[in-house]
Amino acid sequence: MRNLKLTLAYDGTEFVGWQRQAEGTSVQGVLEDALAPFEGAPVTVHGAGRTDAGVHAVGQVASVRLTATIDRETLARALNAVLPAAIRVLSVEEAAPDFHARFSATGKTYEYRIVNAPFVSPFIHRYAWHVPQALDLAAMEAAARVLEGRHDFATFQSTGTDVPSSVRTITSIGWTGGSGSDVPLVLRISGDGFLRHMVRNITGTLVEFGRGRWPASAMARMLASRDRGDAGTTAPPHGLFLTAVMYHRGSAPDV
Amino acid sequence: MRNLKLTLAYDGTEFVGWQRQAEGTSVQGVLEDALAPFEGAPVTVHGAGRTDAGVHAVGQVASVRLTATIDRETLARALNAVLPAAIRVLSVEEAAPDFHARFSATGKTYEYRIVNAPFVSPFIHRYAWHVPQALDLAAMEAAARVLEGRHDFATFQSTGTDVPSSVRTITSIGWTGGSGSDVPLVLRISGDGFLRHMVRNITGTLVEFGRGRWPASAMARMLASRDRGDAGTTAPPHGLFLTAVMYHRGSAPDV
Repeated sequence: MRNLKLTLAYDGTEFVGWQRQAEGTSVQGVLEDALAPFEGAPVTVHGAGRTDAGVHAVGQVASVRLTATIDRETLARALNAVLPAAIRVLSVEEAAPDFHARFSATGKTYEYRIVNAPFVSPFIHRYAWHVPQALDLAAMEAAARVLEGRHDFATFQSTGTDVPSSVRTITSIGWTGGSGSDVPLVLRISGDGFLRHMVRNITGTLVEFGRGRWPASAMARMLASRDRGDAGTTAPPHGLFLTAVMYHRGSAPDV
Repeated sequence: MRNLKLTLAYDGTEFVGWQRQAEGTSVQGVLEDALAPFEGAPVTVHGAGRTDAGVHAVGQVASVRLTATIDRETLARALNAVLPAAIRVLSVEEAAPDFHARFSATGKTYEYRIVNAPFVSPFIHRYAWHVPQALDLAAMEAAARVLEGRHDFATFQSTGTDVPSSVRTITSIGWTGGSGSDVPLVLRISGDGFLRHMVRNITGTLVEFGRGRWPASAMARMLASRDRGDAGTTAPPHGLFLTAVMYHRGSAPDV
């Protein structure tokens, strides 16, 4: 049986999220339904990141085991012909037998996009959070820097999950400039793993630093408190993009 | 009575076009309905370009006469608060008493966006025409150059209009590169006026030059024939953007 690695982009606006749900249309469900006719049987697709409703991806990775012998380029083209335009298969690669999109992942990169202007261009309003108020970017950058490294991120974890540890490593985090109604300000954050709503909770909190709610020095205490109530709001899902998933060499072809 | 110049951006996907129709939602109708409460009476908005259903704008200009004394920045903000996210007021300026968005215009610029790749990013599929086949860009550029200048463009005019002359001047036309699923190839075209579907007919024809249907030398004969049947297909509306409208200095504030 072959093991395939699919790299995907999707506009999350109309989906209930990555994961199949009892109600509504999920990205996973649409993909599994599109793959089944090639296999002649139901298939299960594993995604690296179980993105929430409304969250987008430009580099989601999924793995799927197939007996079908269709070559990978033909499969990519055929999937794109039947999938809705909101989901595109960027590539299909043969993976090692033990490759699993989620369990083999060693890291992920997310981007959170904010339009910091009086209004948002009609062409990106589905893909960025509108924050019209003036933001102190230096304060947002200084507060973000505190989060870099290995920490217990319980402060930035939403309830409703059951993970054994809330310790994670953020390998890089920082803002890249953007101003005007159609050029987003982007928080780019890479790490070995992310807790529930972690990127959105960090983003919402950093924006409150930018609006002057706390001095930048407050971030270290906030992180140490392990109390979700000490941090800021959860940024809305539609500004969030899963941009890349990292793997060890060998567990899968080039990342 | 004041005369105002509004600059607008809109995502044309969900509209029947600029102009009010018996059925469906038009950009003009939505704007007029949004302005009426400020005036306390029905208002008429004139647009520089009567864009077709599905065509977008990032620099449409409209004029409207109002008695309301609301200052222009407050009006822009208030309109953006009530308009759907698909329409944004970029600016409101006081215009000369005789300014008319359409009749005062001395030129317009359009862009036509094409994704020339095996698939289209989910984030721009509403805003670009997908042409997956290989294109000879040099041939498309050479054929485009023939159209520059003052010509009778009857070859590129769709039926169903009643204009006294089909002579227009294209002041500049050219392609700017783009490749991959999310970076469009763009035809940028400026002129003193455009016939019905002229930009889409030119684009559709240039793409056929790019696919080798005719040698570049055929464009001059095609233009001279004044026969719509000699040219290529009409490119779909969703790749087209009205990007700017030009005016003489004095008829309106800065363009």
